Amino acid sequence: MNNTPHAPVTVIGLGLMGQALAGAFLKAGHPTTVWNRTPAKAAPLVAAGARSAPTLGDALAASPLTIVCLTDYDAVYELLGANGVEPDPTTPIDTTLINLTSGSAGQAREAAEWAERRGARYLDGAIMAIPSGIGTAEAVILHSGPEQVFADHASTLGALGTITHLGADPGLASLYDVAGLAMMWSVLNAWLQGTALLAKAGVDAVTYAPFARQIAAGVADWLPGYAEQIDKGSFPAEVAALETDARAMEHLIEESEAMGVNAELPRLIKAMADRAIAAGHGGEQYPVLIEEFGKP
Amino acid sequence: MNNTPHAPVTVIGLGLMGQALAGAFLKAGHPTTVWNRTPAKAAPLVAAGARSAPTLGDALAASPLTIVCLTDYDAVYELLGANGVEPDPTTPIDTTLINLTSGSAGQAREAAEWAERRGARYLDGAIMAIPSGIGTAEAVILHSGPEQVFADHASTLGALGTITHLGADPGLASLYDVAGLAMMWSVLNAWLQGTALLAKAGVDAVTYAPFARQIAAGVADWLPGYAEQIDKGSFPAEVAALETDARAMEHLIEESEAMGVNAELPRLIKAMADRAIAAGHGGEQYPVLIEEFGKP
Repeated sequence: MNNTPHAPVTVIGLGLMGQALAGAFLKAGHPTTVWNRTPAKAAPLVAAGARSAPTLGDALAASPLTIVCLTDYDAVYELLGANGVEPDPTTPIDTTLINLTSGSAGQAREAAEWAERRGARYLDGAIMAIPSGIGTAEAVILHSGPEQVFADHASTLGALGTITHLGADPGLASLYDVAGLAMMWSVLNAWLQGTALLAKAGVDAVTYAPFARQIAAGVADWLPGYAEQIDKGSFPAEVAALETDARAMEHLIEESEAMGVNAELPRLIKAMADRAIAAGHGGEQYPVLIEEFGKP
Repeated sequence: MNNTPHAPVTVIGLGLMGQALAGAFLKAGHPTTVWNRTPAKAAPLVAAGARSAPTLGDALAASPLTIVCLTDYDAVYELLGANGVEPDPTTPIDTTLINLTSGSAGQAREAAEWAERRGARYLDGAIMAIPSGIGTAEAVILHSGPEQVFADHASTLGALGTITHLGADPGLASLYDVAGLAMMWSVLNAWLQGTALLAKAGVDAVTYAPFARQIAAGVADWLPGYAEQIDKGSFPAEVAALETDARAMEHLIEESEAMGVNAELPRLIKAMADRAIAAGHGGEQYPVLIEEFGKP
C-alpha cells in the first residue's frame, strides 16, 4: 500500500531543497504533509495543496514515509531525538525515515542505528542535484540501507528524480556522493587547467571546451575496463606504461610553468605517479595507482 | 594533386608509432617511403609494400608529404638540421613536414620557423592514440600551423585516424595535447579516489565504475556552457555558489581521512577553491576558479 502511486508522504525541513522535494511530491499527486521549525516556510506549499502539521509528532504520524532534509545530522537528532516527538522522546517513530541530510558515511551508519532503536525503518540518501532539478530525471538521488525498505517506497520516491539503491550499508549514499563530487571537481579543474593554458595562446574558452568534453567523456568510457584490472589486482601495460605517462606529466608541468599558469595540479598528478614508480610499478598501467590512493 | 586519394607519403622515424603510421598509409593505398636511422626497422614495412629510401635526402625528395615521428625535437634537428640532407645541410627541404614528435608549444613554434628557413611547409602535430589505434577513427591526431597546408594534405592524413586542425599557431597541437592529458589523468585520479573510498566500504571497483563514468560524462556536458561564463568573465551562481562547494569539499577531505585513503587530491581541490573565496569569489560559480588556474 505504501508503494501505491499516491501514497502519503511527509517532508521535514523546508529549506530550499526541502521545499523542492515537497513540491515534487505534490506535483506527482501524493498527499503531502510538511513540517518546519519556522512554520511560515510551509505557506507556499500549503497554498499548493500540502498539509502543514501542527507538531512534529503529528507530521511523523501522518505518513508511512517521511523525508528528512535538514542542515546537518545534529539538527536531525535535535528535532527527532531529544525534543522531537512530543511528549515523550522515547515514543517509537512508526514511519520510514529517508534522511537526505548531508553528512558522512559514519554519521549515516549511526543514524541508522539510532532509527532502529526508535522503531523506525531508515534509509540514508544523498541528493546529486540542485533544488530546481528536483522532480526531473536529471536529479539523481542515491539511497542506501535495507533493500526492502527502498523497494517499499520506490514508487513514491520516484517523484523526486532518478532514484538508485546502492546497497545495505547506510554509509554508501554518502560515500558515492563525495566520490561523485570528487569526479565533478576534478573534471572541472582539469578543464580549467587546459582552458588557462590555451588562453595564454589566445584560444577562447568556448573554442577549447568541446575538446575537453570529448576527452573527459572518452576517458570515462575506459573506467569499467580499468576497474576490472583493479579487482583482479593485475595491471598489464596494454595501453601505456606508467613511466611513459610520467614523462608526459613532466611535459605538462613544464608547459604550465612556461605558459605562466598554475602548476599545482600537474605536480600532484606527477607526484602520485612518481610514488607508484618508486614502488616498482613503472612498467604497469595507470590503474596500479589505486595502491597509492588507498593509503592514508 | 597532393590531396588525391593515393598521394605518395614519406615516414621518417620507425619506432612503434612511426611503424604504425607507415602501416596505416600503406593500408590506405598510399605509395609509402620510409626511412630510419637503423634501416632494419624498415623491413616489415618493405615486406608490406613500402619503399625504403637509401638516404634521408632521398626520403624527403620522394613525397610531397613527409611525416616525422622521432623521440624528441633534438632528434629532429640532428637528422634534418645538421647531417640530414646530404650533402649540404643548407639544401632546401622541398616537402611538407608534419612533425608528430612529442614536444612543447615553444619547440613547435621554433621548429616551424626553422622549417620555413629551410623552405619546407610545416605543421606540428600530436597523436592522442597508442600505436595499435592508428588507422582507426579512435586515433585523434591534432595539427596546427597554416590552414592551407593542412587542407592540402587532409585526404592523405585521414588515413591515420580522426584528424583535426586547431589553428595557425604551430604550438596549439602540443598545448591541446597536454591539456587533454591533464583531463585524462584527472578523470582517472578522481575515479581512483572514489574507488579507494568505496573499497574501504567493501564495494568492488567494477561496481563503482559505472557511477564514476556517468558523473564524468555528465560534468563533461556542462563544459561548453561554463566556457561561456569564462569568455564573458561573469560567473553568476546559477547552480551553486563556490562557498557551498567548499563545505562539500571539506566533507570529501574528512571522509577520505576517516576512511584511511589519500587526501592530497581532495586537499588540492579545496585549496584552489579557498583561494578564490579569499579573493572574494565565494558567492560566484565554480568556473570563477579560472582566475586561480591562470596564475603562475
